[in-house]
Amino acid sequence: MPYDLVIRAGRVITATHELTADVAIEGEKIAAIGHGLSGRRTLDADGLYVLPGAVDGHVHLSLHTAYGRTADDFYQGTLAAAYGGVTSIVDFVDPRPDQPLLAALAERRGEAEGRVVIDYGLHMTLTGPMIAARPAWREEVPLAREAGCYSFKLYTAYPGYYLPDDALLQALEAVAAVDGLAVVHAENWPVIQTLTRRFVAAGQVEPRWHPASRPAITEGEAVHRVLALARLTGARVLIFHISCAEAVHALGMARARGQIAFGETCPHYLVLDDAAYLRPLPEALRFLCQPPIRGQVEQEALWRAVAGRGLDVISTDHCPHPDEQKQAGAANFTRTAGGISGIETRLALMHTFGVRRGQISRTRWVELCCTAPARLFGLRGKGELLPGADADIVLFDPTRQVTLSQAALHSAIPYSQYEGIQVSGYPVATISRGDVIVDQGQFIGQPGRGRFCVR
Amino acid sequence: MPYDLVIRAGRVITATHELTADVAIEGEKIAAIGHGLSGRRTLDADGLYVLPGAVDGHVHLSLHTAYGRTADDFYQGTLAAAYGGVTSIVDFVDPRPDQPLLAALAERRGEAEGRVVIDYGLHMTLTGPMIAARPAWREEVPLAREAGCYSFKLYTAYPGYYLPDDALLQALEAVAAVDGLAVVHAENWPVIQTLTRRFVAAGQVEPRWHPASRPAITEGEAVHRVLALARLTGARVLIFHISCAEAVHALGMARARGQIAFGETCPHYLVLDDAAYLRPLPEALRFLCQPPIRGQVEQEALWRAVAGRGLDVISTDHCPHPDEQKQAGAANFTRTAGGISGIETRLALMHTFGVRRGQISRTRWVELCCTAPARLFGLRGKGELLPGADADIVLFDPTRQVTLSQAALHSAIPYSQYEGIQVSGYPVATISRGDVIVDQGQFIGQPGRGRFCVR
Amino acid sequence: MPYDLVIRAGRVITATHELTADVAIEGEKIAAIGHGLSGRRTLDADGLYVLPGAVDGHVHLSLHTAYGRTADDFYQGTLAAAYGGVTSIVDFVDPRPDQPLLAALAERRGEAEGRVVIDYGLHMTLTGPMIAARPAWREEVPLAREAGCYSFKLYTAYPGYYLPDDALLQALEAVAAVDGLAVVHAENWPVIQTLTRRFVAAGQVEPRWHPASRPAITEGEAVHRVLALARLTGARVLIFHISCAEAVHALGMARARGQIAFGETCPHYLVLDDAAYLRPLPEALRFLCQPPIRGQVEQEALWRAVAGRGLDVISTDHCPHPDEQKQAGAANFTRTAGGISGIETRLALMHTFGVRRGQISRTRWVELCCTAPARLFGLRGKGELLPGADADIVLFDPTRQVTLSQAALHSAIPYSQYEGIQVSGYPVATISRGDVIVDQGQFIGQPGRGRFCVR
Amino acid sequence: MPYDLVIRAGRVITATHELTADVAIEGEKIAAIGHGLSGRRTLDADGLYVLPGAVDGHVHLSLHTAYGRTADDFYQGTLAAAYGGVTSIVDFVDPRPDQPLLAALAERRGEAEGRVVIDYGLHMTLTGPMIAARPAWREEVPLAREAGCYSFKLYTAYPGYYLPDDALLQALEAVAAVDGLAVVHAENWPVIQTLTRRFVAAGQVEPRWHPASRPAITEGEAVHRVLALARLTGARVLIFHISCAEAVHALGMARARGQIAFGETCPHYLVLDDAAYLRPLPEALRFLCQPPIRGQVEQEALWRAVAGRGLDVISTDHCPHPDEQKQAGAANFTRTAGGISGIETRLALMHTFGVRRGQISRTRWVELCCTAPARLFGLRGKGELLPGADADIVLFDPTRQVTLSQAALHSAIPYSQYEGIQVSGYPVATISRGDVIVDQGQFIGQPGRGRFCVR
Repeated sequence: MPYDLVIRAGRVITATHELTADVAIEGEKIAAIGHGLSGRRTLDADGLYVLPGAVDGHVHLSLHTAYGRTADDFYQGTLAAAYGGVTSIVDFVDPRPDQPLLAALAERRGEAEGRVVIDYGLHMTLTGPMIAARPAWREEVPLAREAGCYSFKLYTAYPGYYLPDDALLQALEAVAAVDGLAVVHAENWPVIQTLTRRFVAAGQVEPRWHPASRPAITEGEAVHRVLALARLTGARVLIFHISCAEAVHALGMARARGQIAFGETCPHYLVLDDAAYLRPLPEALRFLCQPPIRGQVEQEALWRAVAGRGLDVISTDHCPHPDEQKQAGAANFTRTAGGISGIETRLALMHTFGVRRGQISRTRWVELCCTAPARLFGLRGKGELLPGADADIVLFDPTRQVTLSQAALHSAIPYSQYEGIQVSGYPVATISRGDVIVDQGQFIGQPGRGRFCVR
Repeated sequence: MPYDLVIRAGRVITATHELTADVAIEGEKIAAIGHGLSGRRTLDADGLYVLPGAVDGHVHLSLHTAYGRTADDFYQGTLAAAYGGVTSIVDFVDPRPDQPLLAALAERRGEAEGRVVIDYGLHMTLTGPMIAARPAWREEVPLAREAGCYSFKLYTAYPGYYLPDDALLQALEAVAAVDGLAVVHAENWPVIQTLTRRFVAAGQVEPRWHPASRPAITEGEAVHRVLALARLTGARVLIFHISCAEAVHALGMARARGQIAFGETCPHYLVLDDAAYLRPLPEALRFLCQPPIRGQVEQEALWRAVAGRGLDVISTDHCPHPDEQKQAGAANFTRTAGGISGIETRLALMHTFGVRRGQISRTRWVELCCTAPARLFGLRGKGELLPGADADIVLFDPTRQVTLSQAALHSAIPYSQYEGIQVSGYPVATISRGDVIVDQGQFIGQPGRGRFCVR
Repeated sequence: MPYDLVIRAGRVITATHELTADVAIEGEKIAAIGHGLSGRRTLDADGLYVLPGAVDGHVHLSLHTAYGRTADDFYQGTLAAAYGGVTSIVDFVDPRPDQPLLAALAERRGEAEGRVVIDYGLHMTLTGPMIAARPAWREEVPLAREAGCYSFKLYTAYPGYYLPDDALLQALEAVAAVDGLAVVHAENWPVIQTLTRRFVAAGQVEPRWHPASRPAITEGEAVHRVLALARLTGARVLIFHISCAEAVHALGMARARGQIAFGETCPHYLVLDDAAYLRPLPEALRFLCQPPIRGQVEQEALWRAVAGRGLDVISTDHCPHPDEQKQAGAANFTRTAGGISGIETRLALMHTFGVRRGQISRTRWVELCCTAPARLFGLRGKGELLPGADADIVLFDPTRQVTLSQAALHSAIPYSQYEGIQVSGYPVATISRGDVIVDQGQFIGQPGRGRFCVR
Repeated sequence: MPYDLVIRAGRVITATHELTADVAIEGEKIAAIGHGLSGRRTLDADGLYVLPGAVDGHVHLSLHTAYGRTADDFYQGTLAAAYGGVTSIVDFVDPRPDQPLLAALAERRGEAEGRVVIDYGLHMTLTGPMIAARPAWREEVPLAREAGCYSFKLYTAYPGYYLPDDALLQALEAVAAVDGLAVVHAENWPVIQTLTRRFVAAGQVEPRWHPASRPAITEGEAVHRVLALARLTGARVLIFHISCAEAVHALGMARARGQIAFGETCPHYLVLDDAAYLRPLPEALRFLCQPPIRGQVEQEALWRAVAGRGLDVISTDHCPHPDEQKQAGAANFTRTAGGISGIETRLALMHTFGVRRGQISRTRWVELCCTAPARLFGLRGKGELLPGADADIVLFDPTRQVTLSQAALHSAIPYSQYEGIQVSGYPVATISRGDVIVDQGQFIGQPGRGRFCVR
């Protein structure tokens, strides 16, 4: 009896394994991996890699900020993701201080539903203003956990988000109590604010002052502090977007002592460097992000950590600000909306700069981009090629040469930070729960077909 | 079309995942994992765990020592392994100084063939005397690698094995050159010899002096040194049988700096403690092993490391000395043949003391005992439940209560270090490449059916 | 020509040296150290130690708190100090938020003048409320430095003092700019407040909950953070009253990286342990201090650090609260005025528990109690036995046995935390700038004779 | 009554203090430091620094090596020392394997006596061959200690010296048993030998291959190992000639754990860099030493450690090989006699590159070059300006500009590694036990006037 769909004779690559095999799909699930499988429909994968669909555990679609929304809504952003071989994302719920967590979750799901073209989960953000304003938040954490938010975003920076240490402690305890995962933006906010104000006061308002306004010490210190408080509470922690050796080292020391903690980095910290901030306007502003992209010494340390398991996942922190939000900082870099857009380019960049340059193996590539994020962020049925798992699959042509450019990418923003970079290897087809949503480089899925993942 | 064999409705547990499903086997391979699969033969796994067959990457069957052979030959030892849910082992080739590596490999395979009931690999030992005696060893390393020895055992201790630092450097370089894995026994041998001689000279010859003759510093120092030399050569290293926090810390610090290195510990370091050496003779001598079993503070540190990924695999270092080899030390503990027998009890002990006591999750248990050893030791097709993988599977009854005893175990030795310990959960059936070799608690496999794994 | 005063034939002990010699004094200065010196007056020191007068760099006389003043004013406190062989103290100026630093300094000097019987310096406290309220503070720091305040006290805890990280950064910068020394109370205040509130809410209000409300992690974290910010600013830092291994380790790691930083501990952390909090009321409350006195494992780590130069000075943090301020916490330990009284007992305790027990040498004892504090806190002419140095000298009888008791001590408080402890060796005479102010165990000095030290 | 000699109105600088004062000498001792002192003879020190005579704890005069003797005998070498402001040295006794320690001490003292112009001590070397050959060595260690050898030199490198770990352990224990100090050359000898042989085999025989043949890892590893074994034995250790950050870090980590251990570096590691090995022959060979002079990154780390107390003393490891011994390596750098000549230039170099460049304070300069070596190496009465201390004094003109050159220096070798370097500040007079032996830049002392220091 033929299966619904068979991907034939591809090079199947998992986090631990490579084999040449057929992959059969029945309905939304992987039904078999084997040889000589027959299907009502067949995709020929000869010469291609067959990977678990990539999981991007850190994206910001339709994010409200003081600058307005990010450019990609849940349709545009997940469309771009699908083109890039991503079959699940985890975005965020950012409750207002006075808004119950479940109400915020419902509202955020409302923004996604009808638009999202791949499956998605949501981290629940616990903000400082909320903790200060509404004691009920604590009883709502288990409800949010039950409603599918396994992970909780904590910020040690930003107005509207910043958790002073007492609130951070409480948030970590609440996360530990529901056996969830704290995902943390770790920078020392009071120090960064002070340094930033000074650059402005001194008239040093060009983008090249950005990295110096957030030195690696301020990130390393915050990572150490978050891990210390997590140790006090027993919370499991994943540090987001680690950009420097000092933060890697703080994480490694905590682990050497027996603490359970994880680390994420992003392609922009591995592929770009701080020379970007020296480019002329308007370009330089587009590279502003927090923590900043750093120098090559830090970049090399990150690659060593990625290879040597000092870091665990690679996500994008996709944050596609319209260029006017970027150029808001033209006269003062501190007024720039920070963020890098990378939802579509991660697999290709990590293949080119990681696998091809010999930094990591193919299985490690899959682990970092697909399997580990699914496991660490609690996406059941994702990130694996195992019968019974969701039929989320990407076909990747390792020989395809592409020059990245805004024109060829699908984010709504009119620029790309990776403009002009040559990549070797590119996704060519994407399957989400059995649907072929990108085929021969064309998106053919339906808006709203993606589902919320209860994690 | 029915499959050869279907394991029905078990709780499938992998290193990353749990699902209730059927597992279908066709010939020697896993053919499918799914629902409603039909087979010519069926094993009902309702209420049981279905795990990838356990992999024991560190055993010593029919080991020649100055005391004579260890008691379990490749039949008896792998029979016991099979009863314990183990479907692959990695034992050792110990070439004589004048013996070419391939000749030694052939000789050792000759000892296994005809006897072994499960699949096996062999680590190739590079000894100090060999490196001193025979320059040709270096050209033979690539041949050994091609012949299936992916990993190379290096000792920083023991007459006949001891690698002084210059030989250790050369051995690590040779391993790095073939992109292999160095698996290392790390203790400071000159220091240990000195301390040991003194205990004897002082008449402190009872087993309780054993741990003090090999203090944690001597292990931690050696681990640090091995990792330093590995860093110099670029070799990947796995430190065997880590028994103390100081060694875990040395490994963690190396990783925090970006080095690729791994660590193993053994059930006896996690379940027993140094009070064993205070038991009356003949018992106390049976617990002698190197490094020694240490106190509870060290044990707690090891559990934290096992849970927190500071250590990567659990093997047994199974070394079943006949009791006369153990009691050779009755008048002087230093004359005791060192080693613990555990090939049959690892899965059950780690389930009881790890999963049941809340130290680790079920998926981590599978990762530590099955998947990680297969991956780290290079056993392709092992340690996974993936179609195309070898149909090496164990059914484990999580509710079965067993009191461990020599009588109930299958090693040839007339004692067990775990005598009297109650375990919760036990393997009930073992499948090796599609053969049900243990069924309802009875071994029904054939001697010699196991195959050598080219790694 | 005879000198004014000759101390004859004592065992002169300095931080680096021991010799049997005469010490001659002319006016306020040491004039000579030699043999056969003749003086108009002679003190026979045969069988006694002749030490540089002890320097206590951390005392709180007449401290205003929410509970009222501490019991010892500058007369009573320095009288007790003199009895204990102390010839210089450094106390604090605690400006009100709206009070210029120089005005506060003048006011504080006014409290001392007319009363103080030995020389004294003052640390200038930079508080969070002041930094928030009065931008002029920054221009006043150089003025305070010129007026003799070389060191600046920074708190990461306590209402009225607490410096959030941005203010801490500014304070450190200001200290670095005048090439001063930041002396820092390092605990994580927001976390401690949260934990404390909970103990109270849970009805755990007895003194034995005190240590758990301020766990070692909260101290270690704060020390790490202070050192990170100091690294950012280039400030030299001395961490006050280190009570645990985690803080020692954070300091050691910073130094191993090349940072210039120092650490202090206090006798109560070295001599007492947390069993004190289990005593019945009213006793237990008298031991409350911040950080808390910890367990024996921490105490052993502190002794190792004291011996091995992981810590640099021993001060007392003398803080003699009247018993009613202590017993204010009878129903709730968090309402207790925290602090230990030790200004008189340090030399004797460190001789007994340090030198006599073999933890430290005699020269190290002198270094820790006399020379290093003088050097680190910038007291020129103090802490040394060098001609030209101030003739601040203590004669110490190493054989004298004393049982410490409130009755025998001279603080105004009606209890002593060291009540009943036997000490071996005791100061018998104290000379301050050439005046014999304690002779044969009797104070004979004049109130107000002490002088302010411009540091 | 006038003193024998008064040094008038100089700027007295000690390890902790600066004052303008007269220093009076009576016989061999300092008699007073004060004002208005009168002497039968007077040296006007107005405008000059008055320092305790410098102590060089690590020199090799008349050293027997396989290349022959070093060029400076005890006369020539101490003459040069005296010109450089050095008033005490510690050289070595290198017993032959079959020679009792006391006999070797007597022989070595015989080489010094009649020649030496300043005071000297001797480290007793404990070699591997001796420990292997003559069990009596152990009983001789206390005799050597009594005879004045407080410190014992241990090598982890060099034929004839190399201590394998078991002998190292025994040597450390023997040193601990007499409460002595182990001074250790720490490099991993077996690894260095292997690497060196390879460079030769590959025809890479020019001096520029020297640093690569002894990479920093081999030094860092050995330092870690020595400290681990010292921890096991309780021995106090001072690591000689630390040349890299990895070694500093290993030392710092041991101290952060509470171990008592110290570190030395040398001017050539602080002032020169590995570009020296790129100079043309014959020059490049003159810079060969072990450990090698390293790159600027390491140099900066050493300066940070020197300033921040991560290192404790600066010695020279003066080792003046005749140029033919240097040029023996013309065809093969590994045949070069290793060593740098610096006995005369240390004070001036450290003043110029340390004090003048703002790396260290004047008191730290004195501590590193004079006081700390006296204390750590056990030279009683040296390194201090204290009445009763030996009248070992140097007058240093901080304004004098000198261009270093072989012609202006006094070592017997016909070259200087510091040739052409400009220094600011230079010693102008040297007093040894009251004798003015260098006056107005002319040596006027007598050969043989120096005495052996029982330490």
